[in-house]
Amino acid sequence: MSESFDAVDVIVAKRDGHRLSDAQIDWVIDAYTRGVVADEQMSALNMAILLNGMDRSEIARWTAAMIASGERMDFSGLSRPTADKHSTGGVGDKITLPLAPLVAVFDVAVPQLSGRGLGHTGGTLDKLESIPGWRAALSNEEMMRQLDEVGAVICQAGSGLAPADRKLYALRDVTGTVEAIPLIASSIMSKKIAEGTGALVLDVKVGSGAFMKDEARAAELARTMVELGTDAGVTTVALLTDMSTPLGLTAGNALEVRESVEVLAGGGPADVVELTIALAREMLDAAGRPDADPAAALRDGRAMDAWRRMITAQGGDADAPLPWARETETVVAERDGVVSTLDAYAVGIAAWRLGAGRARKEDPVQAGAGVQIHARPGDTVRAGEPILTLHTDTPDRFARAREALVGGIVVEPSGTSVVTRPLVIDRITA
Amino acid sequence: MSESFDAVDVIVAKRDGHRLSDAQIDWVIDAYTRGVVADEQMSALNMAILLNGMDRSEIARWTAAMIASGERMDFSGLSRPTADKHSTGGVGDKITLPLAPLVAVFDVAVPQLSGRGLGHTGGTLDKLESIPGWRAALSNEEMMRQLDEVGAVICQAGSGLAPADRKLYALRDVTGTVEAIPLIASSIMSKKIAEGTGALVLDVKVGSGAFMKDEARAAELARTMVELGTDAGVTTVALLTDMSTPLGLTAGNALEVRESVEVLAGGGPADVVELTIALAREMLDAAGRPDADPAAALRDGRAMDAWRRMITAQGGDADAPLPWARETETVVAERDGVVSTLDAYAVGIAAWRLGAGRARKEDPVQAGAGVQIHARPGDTVRAGEPILTLHTDTPDRFARAREALVGGIVVEPSGTSVVTRPLVIDRITA
Repeated sequence: MSESFDAVDVIVAKRDGHRLSDAQIDWVIDAYTRGVVADEQMSALNMAILLNGMDRSEIARWTAAMIASGERMDFSGLSRPTADKHSTGGVGDKITLPLAPLVAVFDVAVPQLSGRGLGHTGGTLDKLESIPGWRAALSNEEMMRQLDEVGAVICQAGSGLAPADRKLYALRDVTGTVEAIPLIASSIMSKKIAEGTGALVLDVKVGSGAFMKDEARAAELARTMVELGTDAGVTTVALLTDMSTPLGLTAGNALEVRESVEVLAGGGPADVVELTIALAREMLDAAGRPDADPAAALRDGRAMDAWRRMITAQGGDADAPLPWARETETVVAERDGVVSTLDAYAVGIAAWRLGAGRARKEDPVQAGAGVQIHARPGDTVRAGEPILTLHTDTPDRFARAREALVGGIVVEPSGTSVVTRPLVIDRITA
Repeated sequence: MSESFDAVDVIVAKRDGHRLSDAQIDWVIDAYTRGVVADEQMSALNMAILLNGMDRSEIARWTAAMIASGERMDFSGLSRPTADKHSTGGVGDKITLPLAPLVAVFDVAVPQLSGRGLGHTGGTLDKLESIPGWRAALSNEEMMRQLDEVGAVICQAGSGLAPADRKLYALRDVTGTVEAIPLIASSIMSKKIAEGTGALVLDVKVGSGAFMKDEARAAELARTMVELGTDAGVTTVALLTDMSTPLGLTAGNALEVRESVEVLAGGGPADVVELTIALAREMLDAAGRPDADPAAALRDGRAMDAWRRMITAQGGDADAPLPWARETETVVAERDGVVSTLDAYAVGIAAWRLGAGRARKEDPVQAGAGVQIHARPGDTVRAGEPILTLHTDTPDRFARAREALVGGIVVEPSGTSVVTRPLVIDRITA
């Protein structure tokens, strides 16, 4: 039986800038999960945490308390080491799709528990559901069997992991307290630690299309998560990567699956290939496979074979044609010159409005909707040449998608030098 | 029709240190009163206000929005000017009782809307209800008639004034956001401005028995309230007064009425007389009666006559014996020496535990319960001499009352010089 506290005392302690004790943290998370601490009390505490912060040991305890609110998974029965990747989300970020089978090629189990999209960034499960027959929901037993037989699984996270986080996230969403780094870090890491992976690579995005627009804050989030993972015994490393422009040449569900398959076939856009290989190397290193050569596995078809096995194991038809949207429109360059900006957020909102994303959790998504990119920052264009193709089943959406793009595409006079940030900005380790 | 906002945007603005616009404030108070903004959203906003503050014009608008949530009273039909007093609450603070009739002597109407006690400070209505027959609840018409005929009324505030404040206060109470100066100031002043008084004198207590323990914060609260009153056209002045030791020689309902009647009869403890006259002078000045002599009205019986009329008008029997508690116990000095500390908070908690106060709003209070004080800071005592007499109808309460007093009474060796703060510490005007 744990100690009992008064919710107001816990709120006041954090409000006045004090550390919360382990016992206070354990109590408040458990009491909130049980409904003893009310939503209005937790939201006041969240705001105090956002404005006054938590130190490393408080965040670790907060995370542990969220893990303790639910079940933990255990991969120790597998013959292989496990490695997982988490991205904080970006526009055109389909990396999980080629990455999971690529890493599995080297006898590492990749248990990729994923979510659906909400807002301007797409969800991995929404993308894979554009493959005919593929299903996201697996039982724990199905997931373990697939990890054992195929090595890679991308499926829906069960509701048993860190239920406190689910309740807390819904509260933060409506109370202006999403942006607290301790709460973001513990939300992500509680699920990843409860999932039981041995190694974890974090892709922390920074830029207009990312949750974090600011590099210093993104780095702080990355460092906080690496510390949490390390303290919990998970080998954790983070890459800080650019999200000022979309990743690759597509944003949208089936469009991104198609691009992922190109990468698995040894082709695809350079930036998607670069980031896939960089993250694969990190996962393989962390899982004890420093000599693995992921670039070779993309070239020689082993990654594609693993992809086909992974899709097939979840009922998907890897050979079936992917859906296309019924209607397209082109966005063209208004002048000759060089593209200096293709804003990730603008493209993300446009894809979302075209039907690739949802406004409410219960909304459906269009498999074929989204944006194809023909010219990226640094590319030369002539007036009238296509920069984007917009795809949707519902053409009345084109107008609002175009509105989202106003100011998001900038073409400068030819000869203007365009400076872009490197794709991998920084690497953060314990 | 007022503009509509997203609650999260309003919370985020204050969270990030921005001013709230007039339209945002009007909307959020109205929407919260109507239940459109949820408790968990308002509590996050309150915490952001507590930690990031509001400027003078934001606080004024917040207060105006709370006033607009309910009815306003109008004393302009009276032939006399009106003046009101508000105390932030202290132990033994019975000043309203002699003060209201004293000021009414000089042809000033005193509409004293009061509350009940909760916690360690007593409530004016609880005190007066120890007078047989007296009733706290008056209709607006009864109140106006009494102001016209008697000049002074102390009664229960109707529920029509600033209903937003009632809802907000209940929320702040359970979410650790009571202590925000902008919210305290607007809570008090919304009711006083809606009440329609022409002049207002604030008694802002500072010390262990007060809500504000710290002089700088008490001064900030006083200044904020004076600004709010002034901006709303109410002549407002504040006295900062000491609450490190109880006011007078009694804490408890009938005990305090008895002491108040002594003051009205021209006697009573020096500190109660001093503060009553100081506050009366401020009210009389603010109401345009600078030549009035309140000390004379205490000496010559005019204040007592006004008291008797005021009590009688509300059904009270001013000649009836006041209740005494059934049991008493004495707290004695443990050594010879000089009393250096008689802590207001300790005495307040003891009186509360003896039955003078309530733990929950619906609890009854004991009319006779409380604490009588025989020795105050600076007084010389001998070992075994009484310092306090504890009064209660329920003698099982003595033990817990004595516990509250541990450390609250300090007797130093004779000859130790005891420094006490002046009763009126500061005077704050617009």
